[in-house]
Amino acid sequence: MGSGSGEAAVVRPLLQAAVAAGRSSLGAHEARRVCEANGIPVPQEGVATSPEQAVLLAERFGYPVVAKVVSAQILHKTEAGGVRVGLRSAAEVRAAYREILASAGSYAPSARVDGVLVQQMVSGGLEVIVGATTDPTFGKLVAFGVGGVLVEVLRDVTFRLAPLGHADALGMLDSIAAAPVLAGVRGAAPVNREALASLLVAVSRLVADCPELAEVDLNPVLADERGVVAVDARFLLSSEPPPVHQRFAREEILASMRRLLRPRGVAVIGASAEQGKIGNSVMRNLVDGGYGGEIYPVNPRAQEILGRRAYASVEEIPGEVDVAVFAIPAKLVPGALEEVGRKGIPTAVLIPSGFAETGNAELQAQVQEVARRWGVRFLGPNIYGFYYTPEKLCATFCTPYDVKGPVALSSQSGGIGMAILGFARSAHLGVSAIVGLGNKADVDEDDLLTFFEEDDATSCIAMHMEDLKDGRAFLEVAKRVSRMKPVIVLKAGRTSAGATAARSHTGALAGDDKVYDDLFRAAGVVRAPGLRDMLEYARCLPMLPTPAGEHVVIITGAGGSGVLLSDACVDNGLSLMTMPPDLDAAFRQFIPPFGAAGNPVDITGGEPPSTYRATIELALEDERVHSLVIGYWHTIITPPMVFAELLADVVEAARAKGIRKPVVASLAGDVEVEAACEALFEHGIPAYPYTTETPVAVLGAKYRWARAAGLLGDRGARQESDGS
Amino acid sequence: MGSGSGEAAVVRPLLQAAVAAGRSSLGAHEARRVCEANGIPVPQEGVATSPEQAVLLAERFGYPVVAKVVSAQILHKTEAGGVRVGLRSAAEVRAAYREILASAGSYAPSARVDGVLVQQMVSGGLEVIVGATTDPTFGKLVAFGVGGVLVEVLRDVTFRLAPLGHADALGMLDSIAAAPVLAGVRGAAPVNREALASLLVAVSRLVADCPELAEVDLNPVLADERGVVAVDARFLLSSEPPPVHQRFAREEILASMRRLLRPRGVAVIGASAEQGKIGNSVMRNLVDGGYGGEIYPVNPRAQEILGRRAYASVEEIPGEVDVAVFAIPAKLVPGALEEVGRKGIPTAVLIPSGFAETGNAELQAQVQEVARRWGVRFLGPNIYGFYYTPEKLCATFCTPYDVKGPVALSSQSGGIGMAILGFARSAHLGVSAIVGLGNKADVDEDDLLTFFEEDDATSCIAMHMEDLKDGRAFLEVAKRVSRMKPVIVLKAGRTSAGATAARSHTGALAGDDKVYDDLFRAAGVVRAPGLRDMLEYARCLPMLPTPAGEHVVIITGAGGSGVLLSDACVDNGLSLMTMPPDLDAAFRQFIPPFGAAGNPVDITGGEPPSTYRATIELALEDERVHSLVIGYWHTIITPPMVFAELLADVVEAARAKGIRKPVVASLAGDVEVEAACEALFEHGIPAYPYTTETPVAVLGAKYRWARAAGLLGDRGARQESDGS
Repeated sequence: MGSGSGEAAVVRPLLQAAVAAGRSSLGAHEARRVCEANGIPVPQEGVATSPEQAVLLAERFGYPVVAKVVSAQILHKTEAGGVRVGLRSAAEVRAAYREILASAGSYAPSARVDGVLVQQMVSGGLEVIVGATTDPTFGKLVAFGVGGVLVEVLRDVTFRLAPLGHADALGMLDSIAAAPVLAGVRGAAPVNREALASLLVAVSRLVADCPELAEVDLNPVLADERGVVAVDARFLLSSEPPPVHQRFAREEILASMRRLLRPRGVAVIGASAEQGKIGNSVMRNLVDGGYGGEIYPVNPRAQEILGRRAYASVEEIPGEVDVAVFAIPAKLVPGALEEVGRKGIPTAVLIPSGFAETGNAELQAQVQEVARRWGVRFLGPNIYGFYYTPEKLCATFCTPYDVKGPVALSSQSGGIGMAILGFARSAHLGVSAIVGLGNKADVDEDDLLTFFEEDDATSCIAMHMEDLKDGRAFLEVAKRVSRMKPVIVLKAGRTSAGATAARSHTGALAGDDKVYDDLFRAAGVVRAPGLRDMLEYARCLPMLPTPAGEHVVIITGAGGSGVLLSDACVDNGLSLMTMPPDLDAAFRQFIPPFGAAGNPVDITGGEPPSTYRATIELALEDERVHSLVIGYWHTIITPPMVFAELLADVVEAARAKGIRKPVVASLAGDVEVEAACEALFEHGIPAYPYTTETPVAVLGAKYRWARAAGLLGDRGARQESDGS
Repeated sequence: MGSGSGEAAVVRPLLQAAVAAGRSSLGAHEARRVCEANGIPVPQEGVATSPEQAVLLAERFGYPVVAKVVSAQILHKTEAGGVRVGLRSAAEVRAAYREILASAGSYAPSARVDGVLVQQMVSGGLEVIVGATTDPTFGKLVAFGVGGVLVEVLRDVTFRLAPLGHADALGMLDSIAAAPVLAGVRGAAPVNREALASLLVAVSRLVADCPELAEVDLNPVLADERGVVAVDARFLLSSEPPPVHQRFAREEILASMRRLLRPRGVAVIGASAEQGKIGNSVMRNLVDGGYGGEIYPVNPRAQEILGRRAYASVEEIPGEVDVAVFAIPAKLVPGALEEVGRKGIPTAVLIPSGFAETGNAELQAQVQEVARRWGVRFLGPNIYGFYYTPEKLCATFCTPYDVKGPVALSSQSGGIGMAILGFARSAHLGVSAIVGLGNKADVDEDDLLTFFEEDDATSCIAMHMEDLKDGRAFLEVAKRVSRMKPVIVLKAGRTSAGATAARSHTGALAGDDKVYDDLFRAAGVVRAPGLRDMLEYARCLPMLPTPAGEHVVIITGAGGSGVLLSDACVDNGLSLMTMPPDLDAAFRQFIPPFGAAGNPVDITGGEPPSTYRATIELALEDERVHSLVIGYWHTIITPPMVFAELLADVVEAARAKGIRKPVVASLAGDVEVEAACEALFEHGIPAYPYTTETPVAVLGAKYRWARAAGLLGDRGARQESDGS
């Protein structure tokens, strides 16, 4: 774990000793040592053995101070009259010293008193919480929030992977809803962001370096303009070794995935000539789908299936086989997988169910063992199979699908896989791949992402998932891939109970979905709030060019749509451009005197196609405009298809001039708008009827991706825009 | 304004005097008097003219206290050394008294010092804000929030109409995100809810009774288990008279609306035989729509239009006319409206645009004046007209629409009206009415609601609006109507800048959309987050029976859908029933051993129709289950249409036995699921393909309505359920 910082070398023996002694947390004195060794500021303190020494300490720390009896025999200091708080002068400190000794003496006459602890009494400043926890999926996490109530009641807290860089720590400070509090509200001075970020970094390094540290709560930390002090620090220990995830090197993954998705030959174990059998559906789909490689049916009781010679075992197949698709009962899988191994087939697709998902974890473990022994990588079990359109490969029992396009999709659930397929067919969605992951006993999302990263047929990846085997590995790959290609994730099970067993505050907070939300965002993953959103994002993101900046302009024929589209822009984090006067004047030349320029540009309802055309052209050609949202209103003078054609025409003319800006449209009108939307989609323009929300939501998703990928730049229109 | 409480009689002369003196706020002394007269607890205080008197006051109030110089000549008390805070003993008070006099004397030797004000120094307890403001749409509002930062940064504040009853005030306390703080967190005692509610009631009565009070800020109010104290109170004055809204009595509104929507005869002013003219479209729609009453074309240059005799003026029409539809240029409207008035036609539909929406407010005012003079109620101007299907009445230039059903819809914008029409046609949505409101220069949402309330053809009302002329009148009607029929509202312009001119804290907070949100919810209005949501709610709410309680059960063929449907239930405020052991056992009889009972009930993917049938029947027949969410997974063994038929069948069989529970379905599968969803809708079961969110969202909307309408009762499953 970690690189073993100098601090860890000091701290770990202390932690290991505590764990060895069977303890589950550190005592106050140990906690202070850990803090000091790691640059975590704590209140200053010292032990005085005389009243005058106590005064000297107090004057060094500054008033007010706290005084506490120091005695190994007095456990309940307050009960013993051994604590005095809020001491504000030398006289008060002197008096407290004497009173404490007197009280302790009468409370426990036989106790040995070693002196009086004088401690800086920190107060004022902003109360924040800095913590760390150990997540079963992501490992060590660091957490940050403001104020007890904000964190506890509103759960306004943010998480990152530990360890953390300073820039990322600064980013955390802006990731909570209460972020403006840090800048100072109600006359308070802003907190020292650098000091706070350094504290987050220190805690993140500490937990990353020390597997024994399960959870950390610095709560409260008092932050003001000068710096930070951790008033209370709890360190919880764990004797469990951190989980070990099997990892493959990028080149190893690519080698396997290339053979899985672009195989030279495919064997179907359990191929069948009988309609209705899965082994028949798989064979048919391979054949009917048009796969160009060899297809080998494997079935000891058949001579020939679908006109191809059948083999009793994969071992008898003469040619090269890169994928074995399993369509046999679960209990037969381990045996057949041995044969696959012996034949040297590098990958398998385990369609059968009856493994961990039905409670048969043992059989699944057996399959994993065989696969690992032979170096076979496999999909599933408990899946529908997969599609890879560049190879016309339908290794699935579902119906074939052959619309090629830039989107790769995966799903953990078969039901969601079928929804993907139905939506794709209905929306004419071009895909490169649709992959079922099922139980993910081997191949998982990071393997797929690693392949799709280098796959020229794929420019956008959308994944439905219920869990992650190794969240950290996924984030590493997703962070890299999402810089080039959008990675959209539908994470189901958002509302699961989660870490009920957490002992610390931070641990309890980490139980919910916020962890996924924060870590996905930090990795540049575009999270879809629901299934339909994932599908629409997958459809539109590859279609939309990357915007050059944050300036969005709405052009609408219906004022009413304009208002709703503006609402949707704000909801989706988009910035309506403040219209520059010259551009405003230019728009006004085209619209009726009572139309509204500004933004939305309201061309009014009675206008002919030429008004839509002129205003959209103007917006496309003006460099200050980065994205366009069009609100169409069905009228006799500009019917839906006329609108669709003119919009497609204008956008294509602009593309011919090298102008590529995202354009989305909302069509309000009678049912003819449905065909108009389809026509617009065919021209690469996302367009939706009867909704002002969806077109803006897909544009918003494109922006979320582009911002995270760093494609809008810091110079982006954000700062220039007044609209944000 | 108001009934003039006893307190108002004391306070109003004071306020009126301040307004008369040209002042915009009350001084500290006046503010204290207003508080005391209205039962608003403030810190105790008294003026001492000797150190011993100061000590007596301090001991009466309890330490700590604050001491301040009292002198009309010393404005800046702190600068003058005239303030001492945190005085904790008689000695400190005595010393402070002397120091203050000495400092004041040297700061302003000529000032007359009247003594020293001794004030209770309130501290501890929870900081809350209680305020009031004057909203242009809703009038006097009362506001509540917790803590400075929570309110200011997170805008966690809630609003209600003033005056307010005690029960509603208690309800306000639960309406903020930070509500758990009031119950005590981090070891704090709970605040005194009764005292806090009484304070809200007192402030609400005060502002309701005193039109001169524009805004009130009690900030902070310190609340603890004993009671509340307003530490600081600001009262801002207004010299403007409150806006007067014209109101009609319910019977007057009904008399007009009945004649508008169920007219005996309709005149079309500007009727035309020429295709493409609005006056032609309106005539055609009236005729083709099948309206049974007389239709009178009015056009001085025509003898006959569409086979009907044309009249030069409405005054020449021999028969009874209840509605005059205007299809003439804006500038001709006032003249023609005079004729309508003279003829005694009670209502008009002003289709033309060119009024306030194009800046011609004067022409609109002229129309209003003519209408008011003749007692003519009118829709518009600037509208598409309206449909009322029970009378087969299409008084619009849009295409006819005749699918009868229980939903009445209205829109302020023509574009949104066209989207309603297109969606309705596409979804086979049965409607009673679709009404354009446009500029709302007369008839508005409250008039329509008043009619739809008594209209037997209407059981659900959905309204798109951008503003409300008289928000208070709307809420009054909506609150009454929504007890019987769902009122769905799409409020556009949610993100408008709003009350930028507010001077108080509360006023500034009231600027945003939260006011609409809170007041709609309090009135039982179901707010739709977007256009498509409004349309889907309108389609499904009348279709779904009212649930008898909060227990929702999910039955799914796809585990993956089950997880997403559970997420959606939580997102939509629905409670998954904790499965009773006997019912769990009953489900297990029907599902494979590895299927999961509990909730969701996962019947697993490979099951035949009989498993869906048996489990759905069981859930429908068990009294403890109140609503059903079905997740279907397309398989060969249970194809989409087979599923649709069995579900429709089971639900209808239950209905025949008198079992009426809401059932919604999410269908995951290939494109055949689209036809299956249509079939289910035809059987009154909301069903959607490729989405797990929408079916649950419409069920959630039904629940929101039913709860607000008091139909689930306090005994509702909420308390019993562990799932919430």
